[in-house]
Amino acid sequence: MAEMVIRIGIIGCANIARKMSRAIALAPNAELSAVASRSAEKAEEFAKANNFPPTAKIYGSYESLLEDPEIDAVYIPLPTSLHLKWACLAASKKKHILLEKPVAPNVGQLDEILEACQANGIQIMDATMWMHHPRTQQMRRFLNDKDQFGEVKAVHSCFTHAPDEDYLRNDIRVKPDLDSLGAIGGDVGWYAIRAILWAFDYELPKTVLAMRGPVFNEAGVILSCGATLHWEDGRVAYFHCSFSSNLTSQVTAIGTKGTLHSDDFVIPYQEKEAYYKAASKNRLNDLQTGWEPLPSHHIISTDLPQEVHMVGAFAQLVRDIKANGGKPDQFWPLCSRKTQLIIDAVMDSIGQGFEPIEVVN
Amino acid sequence: MAEMVIRIGIIGCANIARKMSRAIALAPNAELSAVASRSAEKAEEFAKANNFPPTAKIYGSYESLLEDPEIDAVYIPLPTSLHLKWACLAASKKKHILLEKPVAPNVGQLDEILEACQANGIQIMDATMWMHHPRTQQMRRFLNDKDQFGEVKAVHSCFTHAPDEDYLRNDIRVKPDLDSLGAIGGDVGWYAIRAILWAFDYELPKTVLAMRGPVFNEAGVILSCGATLHWEDGRVAYFHCSFSSNLTSQVTAIGTKGTLHSDDFVIPYQEKEAYYKAASKNRLNDLQTGWEPLPSHHIISTDLPQEVHMVGAFAQLVRDIKANGGKPDQFWPLCSRKTQLIIDAVMDSIGQGFEPIEVVN
Repeated sequence: MAEMVIRIGIIGCANIARKMSRAIALAPNAELSAVASRSAEKAEEFAKANNFPPTAKIYGSYESLLEDPEIDAVYIPLPTSLHLKWACLAASKKKHILLEKPVAPNVGQLDEILEACQANGIQIMDATMWMHHPRTQQMRRFLNDKDQFGEVKAVHSCFTHAPDEDYLRNDIRVKPDLDSLGAIGGDVGWYAIRAILWAFDYELPKTVLAMRGPVFNEAGVILSCGATLHWEDGRVAYFHCSFSSNLTSQVTAIGTKGTLHSDDFVIPYQEKEAYYKAASKNRLNDLQTGWEPLPSHHIISTDLPQEVHMVGAFAQLVRDIKANGGKPDQFWPLCSRKTQLIIDAVMDSIGQGFEPIEVVN
Repeated sequence: MAEMVIRIGIIGCANIARKMSRAIALAPNAELSAVASRSAEKAEEFAKANNFPPTAKIYGSYESLLEDPEIDAVYIPLPTSLHLKWACLAASKKKHILLEKPVAPNVGQLDEILEACQANGIQIMDATMWMHHPRTQQMRRFLNDKDQFGEVKAVHSCFTHAPDEDYLRNDIRVKPDLDSLGAIGGDVGWYAIRAILWAFDYELPKTVLAMRGPVFNEAGVILSCGATLHWEDGRVAYFHCSFSSNLTSQVTAIGTKGTLHSDDFVIPYQEKEAYYKAASKNRLNDLQTGWEPLPSHHIISTDLPQEVHMVGAFAQLVRDIKANGGKPDQFWPLCSRKTQLIIDAVMDSIGQGFEPIEVVN
């Protein structure tokens, strides 16, 4: 039983599914078992281009993959607006779900998905890869260290990139009917928001205030925005996300006693080695001409990239359910929901003329 | 004439004056010529403890130092509330002025100081040391590089430290009658705000919005706060400053094509070597498993610490006036004034219940 391998099917041939095909193939406890597209030709082509094993099944519709009893779980990289339909159907077909972010256009739709999962005993996890890098666990230990880091007081994070003209015209993330959240959703804001929640150990802020002057495209989709988040006792966070700036990915968490910083937290600069910076109890020397002690760099080597760790963690949870009759783990769906709550609050704040929005769980 | 050395007197024996005594002594074009305290004993003691040359004069009052015709310029590290009186008097006595920050409690008082300097042909410069580090000039060249950095879109900066109980009870920076600006002023907010203006090449924002939930001490002085700054076209900045968190000092400027980052911009980790990180035209590789190219680290060695570069730059401007009949340089007073304008806007925003404040030059 310990060697049970989870058979995963991919629903939709999105660009990111190429990376995930490799990750599923590399994960020791998962198997790249099927791919579905709206046409069998496209699925076939995708499987070939991405080195699917000869045993992998090719489906010309999402439904047919979901009917296959030999598939344990699905990875869904479809546009956000399609998540509700396909995640709920997958849950009803007893497929465990690895769902691309943003998980839904709003928390209302997410709750429908989560209820479907709950009702069917289905594990759901969003595909936020960096959460599963061994570096992230090590940074977490530093944040939890009351002596070295203390209590978190302020966090700032950002994720920006500058996609080409073709992306800005045609990508699903700038189409209101496909990913209405634009930059705050899938590829940028989601990560920056999650990093803040992570650093605050998932304590939700009391209020969220969108930054004035968000940039929209002609279709009304956000290309650039930000917000400040507010907890009691002056604890604060800020994030910025954009499709109009050089690729930048930073999180800084400042505690009463320590400081954590990563500038490649979303995707490490290099696949097999990641680092972060930790500083603790820093002071200026007597004449204020230097720091004591100096911050330290920590390097984490990993044979498996973070997305393989993610698939591995997901497959492990599915295995616990299937092999041991366990219940779906609630950490990951809760984590998705809190992230979505912040996104909704930012959108509400923008919609209400940049008023502060109370975050209600 | 090229070897003219500027004779500098220090007005007030503040802790920071120890560092500056050394800096003045080390600057090739300046001389540590006098120190004044409210008592001659205290001045004498300070001079001894800080290796003043035997030629240096000791004054038991600020007035008497200002009357000395053999002093060309003064360094004023007095509490902010005393700047108006002593800077104006110094200007009227034709002493050029290196003034500690924050330069004034508000821009109104600063304007009185600047007018006094203008009327008397006096050079004034605020003592923001990091502006004079050779690293800062090199980072500036990167920011100015339209091909490598492009246009600045977003900046975030912070400066925090966690002084001990004694400081939080007794330091001038937490006393409303001495430095009413608290954390937003002298040692923390000033730097973070200046870094933003610097990165935006001194273009003032249209509006400033204070972060909700600033923390005050019992006397009503700010211990922790922040703000967002807004320019046209969605260009934004954020800063956070605090007396309640581990020593942290970061500035990140994100441009359309490049990213600049320093995490010790206020005071370099080490006196003789500073670094910064520059990244340009970064992309994820095809499978999004790593970055191309990697950011680059730039190391700048300097024999003279940044405060000596500052004294040197100040003395050079004074020399140009005294030796060549030049006019006071307007860059530095303008730079002080813009920084003070932002501080005032943050204070106004807090005072007006966190309304956005239009910045009027």
